[in-house]
Amino acid sequence: MNPRFRDLLALEPLNADELTFLLDQSKPFQEIQRHPLKKLATMRGKTVALAFFESSTRTRISFSTAAARLGADTMNLQAEVSSLKKGESLLDTVHTLDAMKPDCLVMRHAASGAPDFVASHLDIPVINAGDGTHEHPTQGLLDALTIRDRKGSIENLHVTILGDIAHSRVARSNIHLLGKFGCRFTLCGPSMWVPRELQEIASGVPIRRVFRIEEALEHADVVLVLRVQTERLHEPALSAADYILLYQLNAQRLRGAKPDAIVLHPGPMNRGIEITPEVADGPQSCVLQQVTNGIAVRMALLFLLAGAAKEENSSQETSEAANSAALQDRKHAAH
Amino acid sequence: MNPRFRDLLALEPLNADELTFLLDQSKPFQEIQRHPLKKLATMRGKTVALAFFESSTRTRISFSTAAARLGADTMNLQAEVSSLKKGESLLDTVHTLDAMKPDCLVMRHAASGAPDFVASHLDIPVINAGDGTHEHPTQGLLDALTIRDRKGSIENLHVTILGDIAHSRVARSNIHLLGKFGCRFTLCGPSMWVPRELQEIASGVPIRRVFRIEEALEHADVVLVLRVQTERLHEPALSAADYILLYQLNAQRLRGAKPDAIVLHPGPMNRGIEITPEVADGPQSCVLQQVTNGIAVRMALLFLLAGAAKEENSSQETSEAANSAALQDRKHAAH
Amino acid sequence: MNPRFRDLLALEPLNADELTFLLDQSKPFQEIQRHPLKKLATMRGKTVALAFFESSTRTRISFSTAAARLGADTMNLQAEVSSLKKGESLLDTVHTLDAMKPDCLVMRHAASGAPDFVASHLDIPVINAGDGTHEHPTQGLLDALTIRDRKGSIENLHVTILGDIAHSRVARSNIHLLGKFGCRFTLCGPSMWVPRELQEIASGVPIRRVFRIEEALEHADVVLVLRVQTERLHEPALSAADYILLYQLNAQRLRGAKPDAIVLHPGPMNRGIEITPEVADGPQSCVLQQVTNGIAVRMALLFLLAGAAKEENSSQETSEAANSAALQDRKHAAH
Repeated sequence: MNPRFRDLLALEPLNADELTFLLDQSKPFQEIQRHPLKKLATMRGKTVALAFFESSTRTRISFSTAAARLGADTMNLQAEVSSLKKGESLLDTVHTLDAMKPDCLVMRHAASGAPDFVASHLDIPVINAGDGTHEHPTQGLLDALTIRDRKGSIENLHVTILGDIAHSRVARSNIHLLGKFGCRFTLCGPSMWVPRELQEIASGVPIRRVFRIEEALEHADVVLVLRVQTERLHEPALSAADYILLYQLNAQRLRGAKPDAIVLHPGPMNRGIEITPEVADGPQSCVLQQVTNGIAVRMALLFLLAGAAKEENSSQETSEAANSAALQDRKHAAH
Repeated sequence: MNPRFRDLLALEPLNADELTFLLDQSKPFQEIQRHPLKKLATMRGKTVALAFFESSTRTRISFSTAAARLGADTMNLQAEVSSLKKGESLLDTVHTLDAMKPDCLVMRHAASGAPDFVASHLDIPVINAGDGTHEHPTQGLLDALTIRDRKGSIENLHVTILGDIAHSRVARSNIHLLGKFGCRFTLCGPSMWVPRELQEIASGVPIRRVFRIEEALEHADVVLVLRVQTERLHEPALSAADYILLYQLNAQRLRGAKPDAIVLHPGPMNRGIEITPEVADGPQSCVLQQVTNGIAVRMALLFLLAGAAKEENSSQETSEAANSAALQDRKHAAH
Repeated sequence: MNPRFRDLLALEPLNADELTFLLDQSKPFQEIQRHPLKKLATMRGKTVALAFFESSTRTRISFSTAAARLGADTMNLQAEVSSLKKGESLLDTVHTLDAMKPDCLVMRHAASGAPDFVASHLDIPVINAGDGTHEHPTQGLLDALTIRDRKGSIENLHVTILGDIAHSRVARSNIHLLGKFGCRFTLCGPSMWVPRELQEIASGVPIRRVFRIEEALEHADVVLVLRVQTERLHEPALSAADYILLYQLNAQRLRGAKPDAIVLHPGPMNRGIEITPEVADGPQSCVLQQVTNGIAVRMALLFLLAGAAKEENSSQETSEAANSAALQDRKHAAH
């Protein structure tokens, strides 16, 4: 296997080998998060453009910290102050950024498919940091990395996803990734948020819809709790109290899952709405590990797509380079 | 004396030796501000998280410049774009930042005590960059450093504080610091802004309330002018014109203080309201020196709390390390 | 010739030799944009303060990328979050920034002349990043550099400027620069936007006003299309449709210019309003080259004004230093 990646736009088109490769690439960068000095010189002299056309705190900080820890500089474009407001087209905006010669573009956009569109017009690698209700591939990777760390493997797990799955790019990226490894999914939430079409989202992946949370949690190895956007509760015509009553993950309900089940949440959490503090802070929760792994996954991707010199782009070399660079540079930074 | 600091949350709990130690630590970093190249490599590979839950320009830029001059990277969280708006709890927000593995957290918050609360939940050092009406310890330190530079000592001075003292964390940090060195305070402003309780704020520190500015300035060595938040003038039911008439520090009134009295203001100034341009720009004013010293104090603190390796944390070593690191790195950077 | 620059406030006062010197200085920095590693260590340990009192995306990102590629740190002040809102005077704000000891100040302001005013009060170099309707000198330089690259020379060209010239600092900087090299100008747009006074803007420079676009484009070597601020179309009482009909640069009209004419636009473009996509993306368009050259021009200026040690400030030495530093550091960064 010799995977080559130019962009990371979605997890759906990647096969299990390629996904495993990406997860493996993240390992040396996980190591680095445990060291007192976390900065490498691997991408010194390179620039990562961060274009967030939809506001974000954690993903933006995660990518910019990942870039900084690789030694790269960042260019920051944030929607609120961007030329978009002045009527500039998306393509003109990214072409303008591109003309300043960054080495890769990380973008978030409210329109599904916007990063694909942009990538088809640029020569530099594009990383999708979340597009509409389509995908959030780095979130999918960091979730899988967290699951693999905690459960030893991501194969053949029962994964239960709770909440507004219809609007969730996080759910989609998780299904596309974990589905390649034989995982089966149970989706649970208000019926408007769990439409029948979702069962067809990934062909060959067993996906069932269940409307009673207790039933949904039976046999679960992994419970992925999605954030409830309270401003959307009017869609299924639920009050927050109703949602809590019907779908909140609390300790009692979690006891209905497998005893070693783990709980993930992409954040930010609405404590007391979709998840109770007891669960969020309990031993089965992985929420902070997810955040730490986010940096590792993003460092791995930035390094893989934009870090290596263009000549030596074969995956094997890249992989070895990553490991040795990681070690060497850490040594260097420590001096 | 062997002071150990994990956090810097307030000046109130520190004794005179510890405060002197912090001021002394700032000296080599004051030196650095005078050199053509001000960047050290001391904190290369470290990350300072800046979480400003209340907006700020000068304090945020001061801390981020201090971090950059130590060679550290920064993570920037600003309230306006933060997940807090999405209903995330303060603790989840800072735990999320912490999971990205910064080496220390600088935070400003509108709620008094928020940094203490956060510090009790995190393992990394927390620096309070201003919390509600409680304290603004780095401002207290930079004020004291400025006073010491200008008057040779911070002992046994007459300090007059003018303005809205009730709401001022700057006033509190100054009283707690300077009070440990035998300073005595005269508070002057509209009575609603100088409530009787303030006299008890620091036990053993002589604090008197005076409502006529001419009387308040008599014998003053140091005059600390606070910013008037004009939107708060309705509280004492004063017009701006009334405030000017009664409490503005102008040149004539300043002549009633000691001839060598100095004037401090934490900024931003409302020229023409609480202070006249003649005084703000006059020879007794220290406002710009305060700003320069702010960088030095913050470099010293970041270095002290997050810069040294964890093993060699004893103050004596740290102090020496600071000095020699400062000198060595400067030499290095100059090459 | 031995040009010395302390600030860059406007192009109007500079003579042809000085302008040529600035364009020549940009050449090694243009080279750098083509290399895989674009970062120099030339300004390591220096700080560039970016004070944007008027919002901006591309110019701010361009300057901060230029600073980063020189190895400098940046201080970022943006109007929206600044103390200005709290009533602080412009001079107090910049004095405060200056007291944090940056090595130069880049500023944009809505008031024409604000950077001159500020520069007269500070000891550090000030670079005007656009002030009101006065000048935008770095835009003028990057436009001239782009024209020189594409046409071989900036001498004796016919330059046609289309749009709202009355409010355009870009048009003014272009006229002041190119006018020194024997260029002649044709201004075309709604008469309210092309007032008679503009003909006197640069003494000795041939400037004519033409109200039919076809006539304006005849003999043009360079067409500078200005952005239409659609919110200003009420001034000449035009609808967008009227503007398009009368003044839009489309492919057919462009064929009326010289066959090798080039098209510039400072961005952000309103595609479909002042320019058609066919022209914007056509072979005569230089819009992206302008953006790339913007980084080079700004690196050259930052280096020239704030990069060199103060002792060796003679232009000849600086020029050589720039070239050799550029080459050396690139070599160094590549390791």
